[in-house]
Amino acid sequence: MKPVSLKQIAKELGISITTVSKALNDYPDVSEKTRKKVKDLALKLDYSPNSFALGLRKNESKTLGLIIPDNVHYFFSSVIKGILEVAEKHDYLVIVMQSNEDYELEKKQVDLLISKGVAGILISLSNRTHIFDHLNKIINNGIPLLLFDKISKNVNCSKVFIDDRKSAYEAVSYLIKKGYKRIAHFRGDLNPQNSIDRFLGYKKALADNNIEFDPSLVYLCNNNSDFEDGYNSAKKLISDHQGNVDALFTVNDLLAIGAIKYFNQNNIKIPEQIALMGFSNWFMASVITPALTTVEQNGFEMGKKAADILFHEINCIRKGISYEPQKVVIPTELIFRESS
Amino acid sequence: MKPVSLKQIAKELGISITTVSKALNDYPDVSEKTRKKVKDLALKLDYSPNSFALGLRKNESKTLGLIIPDNVHYFFSSVIKGILEVAEKHDYLVIVMQSNEDYELEKKQVDLLISKGVAGILISLSNRTHIFDHLNKIINNGIPLLLFDKISKNVNCSKVFIDDRKSAYEAVSYLIKKGYKRIAHFRGDLNPQNSIDRFLGYKKALADNNIEFDPSLVYLCNNNSDFEDGYNSAKKLISDHQGNVDALFTVNDLLAIGAIKYFNQNNIKIPEQIALMGFSNWFMASVITPALTTVEQNGFEMGKKAADILFHEINCIRKGISYEPQKVVIPTELIFRESS
Repeated sequence: MKPVSLKQIAKELGISITTVSKALNDYPDVSEKTRKKVKDLALKLDYSPNSFALGLRKNESKTLGLIIPDNVHYFFSSVIKGILEVAEKHDYLVIVMQSNEDYELEKKQVDLLISKGVAGILISLSNRTHIFDHLNKIINNGIPLLLFDKISKNVNCSKVFIDDRKSAYEAVSYLIKKGYKRIAHFRGDLNPQNSIDRFLGYKKALADNNIEFDPSLVYLCNNNSDFEDGYNSAKKLISDHQGNVDALFTVNDLLAIGAIKYFNQNNIKIPEQIALMGFSNWFMASVITPALTTVEQNGFEMGKKAADILFHEINCIRKGISYEPQKVVIPTELIFRESS
Repeated sequence: MKPVSLKQIAKELGISITTVSKALNDYPDVSEKTRKKVKDLALKLDYSPNSFALGLRKNESKTLGLIIPDNVHYFFSSVIKGILEVAEKHDYLVIVMQSNEDYELEKKQVDLLISKGVAGILISLSNRTHIFDHLNKIINNGIPLLLFDKISKNVNCSKVFIDDRKSAYEAVSYLIKKGYKRIAHFRGDLNPQNSIDRFLGYKKALADNNIEFDPSLVYLCNNNSDFEDGYNSAKKLISDHQGNVDALFTVNDLLAIGAIKYFNQNNIKIPEQIALMGFSNWFMASVITPALTTVEQNGFEMGKKAADILFHEINCIRKGISYEPQKVVIPTELIFRESS
């Protein structure tokens, strides 16, 4: 016989899994009547909680799950550092997983974390995640879920992110204020929301300053938006627009650094002939010559805030208090350096 | 009454904890006589295994623990990626912890991982770890332990590392072969073994090529060996030895990149006036101008090899087969670029 699950009890009584779970654990925010109904049915069906879920309720599963698309990124390393610091203070362990931008792998990892009975899950979505059933499954299992950086508007959980459109708008507005008018943009994949939003911020800054948008100044860097992409697009930009482009805003620092390499090699002076603005403030942006003006994403702060919110929700669940999903925008800031 | 532990049984019978554990689990490499003695005593003392240890034996704790000194390092990010990739294939989870180069924190994290009943533990030691009781505790609990990169010779477990002395020797020999004679060295903290070994490799290369060692060409960068350290030491090097130094070998790429910044700003031509050799092959070494000649540490390979060995040992324990600790040296390679 297959063991009876919370889901079956919930289905039979027409209530949510969370309510069933709370009723079985005598949480005060479930009515006496519902509690009795749930317990009677559980008894009748011979429901027995699995050992991991049991661990969770007994406060033994002091473990979080964390899924990131790729760790070999200065930004994500900083986020992890922030999350681990907060978890450490709460005496929690963090299981770290890497989806490698693979939706199927992300789904499998979510299942594994649920089956392990982690107390909460933090995810930055892979670029290829467009179906969200696995995320709703987390929520339906009564496990707090927090999305950060690469989030989806279609999932009802807490989110911590930056305002990509506003940040890009501010970055490009700064270039315009400095007198640059022919501003090129190296954009990322057509797909992930942050790449779209940074492009839209760029466009809006031009429009608000009465600069006509020239699509020929926008280069698509969809080869993982890497260093080579930046180098090659810079080459193309110069051959297409030599003398008729005075600034460049890139969707991330890596592309800007590739462009700097090309400009340096070809004696194109930065910022005299072309000014540069990156995005992310990777460590190397500060050490390259010329140092790169860029947008600081505050990954460490994002990690800390994400973990803080998740712990709040874990505590709410343990105390039987309900909570509303939060949306927190981490402020970005322009870092002014030699390249503009 | 405090529950009886494996340790007490081991102490009373004068045998190891591992043997007690194996006897209780009917592993074939424990004699019938010992098995009976252990089981009788366990029965007499009312020994009951804790649930986590039970989970481990039942093959349920498919979890590894990983402690690194600092994640915001390209090298460690690569190692983590390698470890996660192998763990994924075995359907194992990895709990990642960061000691922040703090011995007390590392000790606490080890205790936590043991209490969680992880199946194996991987550690790169903090620079401040000189007592190894916590590591021996892992071994005494019958949990496979693997040290990587920053290891200790005083712990009897498997180790995966690079040959720092040989790698530095090869790097400096290459500079000498190219005709450089006055080679400065920016070394790291006096303490960690890899910093000492790279310094010794530098010295030996000079000696083997009949170049007199000049201590005034060695600069101690003990401020976490960071970018600023490299910048400031380069400034000092030039003011101390202008015209009488033709190459520089740094203990890591970060110091080299700091030095490049100073040389670029002061129109000191690389490699014409001073050649540069780094160590680690951080991502930015390839994108900086001039691109940095350096030693590739193969962090990703190190992570994969470390995890492979650990899984071998976990399987041995599960099958009751004994195993010998392994020492694996990951080959490094010189990456030739513009700076030398």
